[in-house]
Amino acid sequence: MPVAQISAPPGARELLLDTASAIMREGDIVDISLSELSLRSGLNSALVKYYFGNKAGLLKALLDRDWQAIVTSVDALVAKDGWNPEAKLRRHISKVIDTFYAVPYLNRLTMRLVRECDDAEAKRIAELYLSPIYRAYEQLIGDGVRAGVFRPVDPQLFYFTVTGAVDRFFSARLVMKYCFDTDTLTEELRDRYREHTIDIIMAGILAR
Amino acid sequence: MPVAQISAPPGARELLLDTASAIMREGDIVDISLSELSLRSGLNSALVKYYFGNKAGLLKALLDRDWQAIVTSVDALVAKDGWNPEAKLRRHISKVIDTFYAVPYLNRLTMRLVRECDDAEAKRIAELYLSPIYRAYEQLIGDGVRAGVFRPVDPQLFYFTVTGAVDRFFSARLVMKYCFDTDTLTEELRDRYREHTIDIIMAGILAR
Repeated sequence: MPVAQISAPPGARELLLDTASAIMREGDIVDISLSELSLRSGLNSALVKYYFGNKAGLLKALLDRDWQAIVTSVDALVAKDGWNPEAKLRRHISKVIDTFYAVPYLNRLTMRLVRECDDAEAKRIAELYLSPIYRAYEQLIGDGVRAGVFRPVDPQLFYFTVTGAVDRFFSARLVMKYCFDTDTLTEELRDRYREHTIDIIMAGILAR
Repeated sequence: MPVAQISAPPGARELLLDTASAIMREGDIVDISLSELSLRSGLNSALVKYYFGNKAGLLKALLDRDWQAIVTSVDALVAKDGWNPEAKLRRHISKVIDTFYAVPYLNRLTMRLVRECDDAEAKRIAELYLSPIYRAYEQLIGDGVRAGVFRPVDPQLFYFTVTGAVDRFFSARLVMKYCFDTDTLTEELRDRYREHTIDIIMAGILAR
């Protein structure tokens, strides 16, 4: 009898992903130990094999979970009726802050998995998750430029400006800890960085 | 007789560091194999032990080399007479682009070494390299705000905005490769990203 038939409680798959996410977020790492995962989730680590095949499969499933949420949210924002491009971009930057606050490991995890996988899997990740975000930037910025509210900027380069600025902040906990004796993963600092980033980036792109 | 007395050619230490830097830059990694280092440099890998103790010592020496160059350059810029804050900040952003184009691994290497070392070494890295950069931002932005040319922005947060935007771009070669079928480490793209970044960031901070 397969292990999972006797011991997998409802929601076990989601709980494993949630716990793996929390471990990487708190530890500022892009790896997990299956024993810690088992201990923290209260689930038998055989369930990792059952649901994901192995640890690499679990990490890939986490990547899929986190990116799908982002792509869905960005697509919905771009398609939203009745919002102008400026309001959409402000909201988008705010959401990027929330995302990297929630999953500060995501960029590093993506790079790690792309580096370690074969070409076909790298292309799958790029096409499913990175290209849609880029196309959303192209549309959002194009709309703003046509409406005369944004200066013409390259959406591909702008994508790196925004995500780099945000990703770096929340993945720099060690710098913050030793230089400034502070932790980046607090709601207070998240909100200050949100205000700062929206302020600088919007001033950077808005037509005068 | 120590190995180095019979086989270390002049400049061998610098050549080992240069070669390690080139390997990490080209491979988009923050590690090196000593056999590749030996092969590419033409030097006996016993010299790594002689100069640096071990591979970790070599990586630390590379971190010191790269950061010292940055700190010296930033200090000189801030102290430069006859340049106004706007000109200094433009020049600084341009230099940050050059730096991460030359050593795209530097942020990841710093995070790796800080993560793996003890508290004393992490504090040494923070105090020698990260804090001086932060203080330079504080002074440069403070000067600009007092001169009425910059809007008041938080220098600590601004530091992450600038370095994040730049670092991310040059450390995202894999994304660029799979999404856009291009390589970020070309002079043409470096210069486009330089223009884009200076444009966005300066518009973001300049007083209207």
